[in-house]
Parts: sequence; structure tokens; C-alpha cells
Amino acid sequence: MKGPKSLDELTETLQELPGVGRKTAERLAFHILKSPAKNAKKLSDAIIAVKEKVALCSVCFSITESDPCGICADPERDKSIICVVEEPHDVYSIEKVGDFRGVYHVLMGVLSPLEGIGPEELKITELAARVKQGGVKEVIVATNPNMEGEATAMYISKTLAPMETMVTRIARGLPMGGDLEYADEMTLSKALSGRMKI
Amino acid sequence: MKGPKSLDELTETLQELPGVGRKTAERLAFHILKSPAKNAKKLSDAIIAVKEKVALCSVCFSITESDPCGICADPERDKSIICVVEEPHDVYSIEKVGDFRGVYHVLMGVLSPLEGIGPEELKITELAARVKQGGVKEVIVATNPNMEGEATAMYISKTLAPMETMVTRIARGLPMGGDLEYADEMTLSKALSGRMKI
Repeated sequence: MKGPKSLDELTETLQELPGVGRKTAERLAFHILKSPAKNAKKLSDAIIAVKEKVALCSVCFSITESDPCGICADPERDKSIICVVEEPHDVYSIEKVGDFRGVYHVLMGVLSPLEGIGPEELKITELAARVKQGGVKEVIVATNPNMEGEATAMYISKTLAPMETMVTRIARGLPMGGDLEYADEMTLSKALSGRMKI
Repeated sequence: MKGPKSLDELTETLQELPGVGRKTAERLAFHILKSPAKNAKKLSDAIIAVKEKVALCSVCFSITESDPCGICADPERDKSIICVVEEPHDVYSIEKVGDFRGVYHVLMGVLSPLEGIGPEELKITELAARVKQGGVKEVIVATNPNMEGEATAMYISKTLAPMETMVTRIARGLPMGGDLEYADEMTLSKALSGRMKI
């Protein structure tokens, strides 16, 4: 049976979202259909608003409604330490911890020759320009600890090598609550080589 | 960290959907933010369209864009057999099987004294009226096989008892591919009492 056309269309559109299969899309579509019109309107408006209002910070390329973003504009943040991440949502992950008082630089991706993403596709030139301006003591590369993230970290460290800025990499090792027995070899190897004096 | 206001609002609104927690809402919101504006517009429009265009069929109360719905308007469907279900999406589930050639009646819920849902809240009067009009040979009660669904089935059978229409209940038993060892006692009991000659 084909349902009402607009319901089928909503179901299909919802299926384009990540992690949403046919069953989930159907459940969500029926929920929207059953919920009050004002709730549906609110969701519809919120989707449009996020596309219209959110832009990239011209300094660090994280997402923001004002330019520069709240972090770049905050006089309390230490502009001499730049934490480099892959995606805007990585900024949120680190901010949630609450420890980091420096600023960010979002690459907008990661080097991936297989997907045709080279250094030109990323905000690496912009990072080098920021460092070149001076006043940056440390660049912490917080790309993900996988092949692409490691390669990107290496590339950044080479690019920034001529400048007098320390480039560091976040620690790779056993996660808290983890278990030696179940750790993969790469992680264990990184945990050993990255050992610190206690 | 508080993100851009419109992103936080979208995340919160998405969390109101069933089965969508904070993490999922964040992932979806970031996906919408990153996807092309036309995709976001399409989703936003589809949500509004479903609320504006879809209504209930005045005969069977299933959802439709035209009234009466496609099934009620279809001359090929057998109007003498009415299958009673709880919700509009149950119609889809049965239609997917493709065996049933009768028509439907959606109750828009199920008797639930705890939630204050009595017979007046359901489309039971409307069902009785349809049967009273004549020409209905059988009413198949396909409410869910749980406490509320069974109570509703009993209530419908009592309501229709004075009329000369057969009221039947879908079979309750072991699901195909199921296992006696793991079946609960209620299901096993129903499977035994509902045994058929082979």
C-alpha cells in the first residue's frame, strides 16, 4: 500500500538523515503527523533557522551566529594556544570537558587521498597564516586518532615546522575504564610509547 | 559550551521526537547544518506538508489526502469485511502483507482506564453505525494482543453482539520462527487454545 503522498515523501526525506532507516523514518513521520501542528511548525522552522543563521567564524571556522565566534571574541581565552580539530562538533566535545582555555581552529575535514581531499580542501593555509601573524606559542593537533587524522597531524606539523611554534598532539592510549586485555595493538603500542612519569 | 542559539534550538526540538536522545539529536542537527540548504528546505517543507495535507478518512479514520481514502473508495475492496485496528499505521502493516481485501476501521487508540481513555474517546460508536447500516458480514478485531487490546476487543464484541455480524479476533500464538522454549506462558496458552486441525 502506498500511504498518503505527503506522508511517503516525509518518510523518504527523513531516511536521508544519518542513522535513520525505513522503520525509524516511518515512526518519526507518524509521530510528526500525530503531534500538534505547532510542534511540526517549530521543527520545520528550526531546520530553516539553523541553515539561515549559522555561519562559520572567519577566524577559527567553527560554527557561530556572530562573527567572530564567542570563543574567538572572548578576551579571557588564551589566543596563544590553538587547538586544531577536524569538525565544528569537535569544538563542542572539547568545550564540554571545560579544561581548555585556548582557542580553536577547525580544519573542516581531514586529509583523505581516497576521497580526493588534499591540503587545499582543508583550512590548513588559514592555520599557517594565523600562526605566522605571531603570538602563538602552541598548536595542539586534536584530529582523530585514526589513519587520516594521524596523517593530517603529520602534515600540519611539517607545515608549521619553519615557524617558532610548538606543535603537540593529543595523547593516544588506553581509554579510562578500558582494559589491557581488550585493547587493540595500535592503542597498546601508543599507550606504551606515550608513557609518562608518575 | 553553548553552541549557536539556532543550533541548540534545533537540537532541543529534535529531542522531542520519539527515540531521539541528546547525542542523536546533536548528530542530526549537525547533519542538517552541513547538508545543502535545499535538502534542509525539503525536509522542512515535507514536515509542514504532512500536517497540512493529511487528514482522516470520514469512513474508516485511516489517514489520507483524499476523502474517502483510497481503500474505502476502491470498488474492488470487499465492504462486507471490516478489519478494526488501533492506529492508522496498523493499516499499513496489514496492507504490506497484501492478503486482506476488505476495508478498515481505525479506533484511534485503545481502551485504557489508567490513561482515562474510555469508549467515547475511540471510534467505536462510528464502527457500530457502519455495521448498523448493513451489508457487513464480518468484523475482524485486530487490536494488539496485549491487555488493552484484548479488553478493547471484548468491548467491541459486546457492543456488536445485538447485530447480526460475525465478530472475529486475529489469532494469538507462537510467532513464525519462534521457539516453544522461549515463548511466554500467555502466548503458549493462546497457541494451545487456538489450535487448528491440520
